[in-house]
Amino acid sequence: MVHPRLPVDMGRSPHRAGRRLRARRIARYSRLVLSPAVDNLVAQLTRLPGIGTRTAQRLAFHILAAPADEANAIGHAIADVKARVRPCRECGNLTEEELCGVCIDPRRDRTVICVVEQPVDVLSLERTHEYRGLYHVLGGALSPLDGVEPGDLRIERLLDRVGADGVEEVVLATNPTMTGEATAAYLADRLRARVAADG
Amino acid sequence: MVHPRLPVDMGRSPHRAGRRLRARRIARYSRLVLSPAVDNLVAQLTRLPGIGTRTAQRLAFHILAAPADEANAIGHAIADVKARVRPCRECGNLTEEELCGVCIDPRRDRTVICVVEQPVDVLSLERTHEYRGLYHVLGGALSPLDGVEPGDLRIERLLDRVGADGVEEVVLATNPTMTGEATAAYLADRLRARVAADG
Repeated sequence: MVHPRLPVDMGRSPHRAGRRLRARRIARYSRLVLSPAVDNLVAQLTRLPGIGTRTAQRLAFHILAAPADEANAIGHAIADVKARVRPCRECGNLTEEELCGVCIDPRRDRTVICVVEQPVDVLSLERTHEYRGLYHVLGGALSPLDGVEPGDLRIERLLDRVGADGVEEVVLATNPTMTGEATAAYLADRLRARVAADG
Repeated sequence: MVHPRLPVDMGRSPHRAGRRLRARRIARYSRLVLSPAVDNLVAQLTRLPGIGTRTAQRLAFHILAAPADEANAIGHAIADVKARVRPCRECGNLTEEELCGVCIDPRRDRTVICVVEQPVDVLSLERTHEYRGLYHVLGGALSPLDGVEPGDLRIERLLDRVGADGVEEVVLATNPTMTGEATAAYLADRLRARVAADG
């Protein structure tokens, strides 16, 4: 089969030009309809995970229609959380006090520490109602290409806890991703070296 | 066929009791893990349309992990929108000025008014790039059962505009719901009465 040849300056370019014009037209109309403040709110909302432009516009119109105090309650809640919530001094989980709810709970088994990447992982594990030990939140996973080195994670604090607090077992529950697995392997090496040094 | 009879105090109650216990256990654990400020943020986010508890928790953890200025930008954007955005004096569409972008646009056809329920409907219609006339945003639909009477919508202002501005055509584009259709029928009657009185 022989494909028909197109002159060099034809092909898809007229179609593309049409699409470019259409995009410019959409931008012009949107500017007419939405105000700068609404545009900014939509832009801020689309920075949230899983929120596209359409969802952000829907949320923005809901916020516009809501009473001012109800709408501003979201902003106050965000400011409140950023001001009051901090990492637990012991395990790195989220808390408003020095120590988090798991660390101060006398019913938890203090001989086991479960190592996770983020505070959200603590929530996931707590939902199972199976684990009764303590946690250690690393704050991420090792990823040299992204510039995350061992010194950027709460690893020294983990080794201190394992050495000092009568811990008998460490569960490595990093994510099943390449960086998560690499982090677990690195931690296993460090912990084995420490056990060998202690014994 | 004869269905087997169950003793009165059996049936599904043991199972139900189990579920109730489980619900209480979940509540206890959640309180331990999330701080009051995070709980409040999750509660505020679940008030948004289409955002359930899980999504709200995911958003809350993203906000917690984000830099403070990026997180607070959402709150500032909400406050900004509530402070600056108001209804267009002419049509009820959203604007930061006296008149909205459609009403001040000299290229729009001022002989046609399209009547819609909410500002979001203006956005939907503008996305089609077909309509070149003006709008009139009612601010809802008639619904006597919910206490929405003609006086609660921007109906008098619509009749004034139709009477004064050389309007030749009114397009009734309320929603295809029971209240939307009832509103369109009511407006058609009012507009016909006005045309008959003028003629």
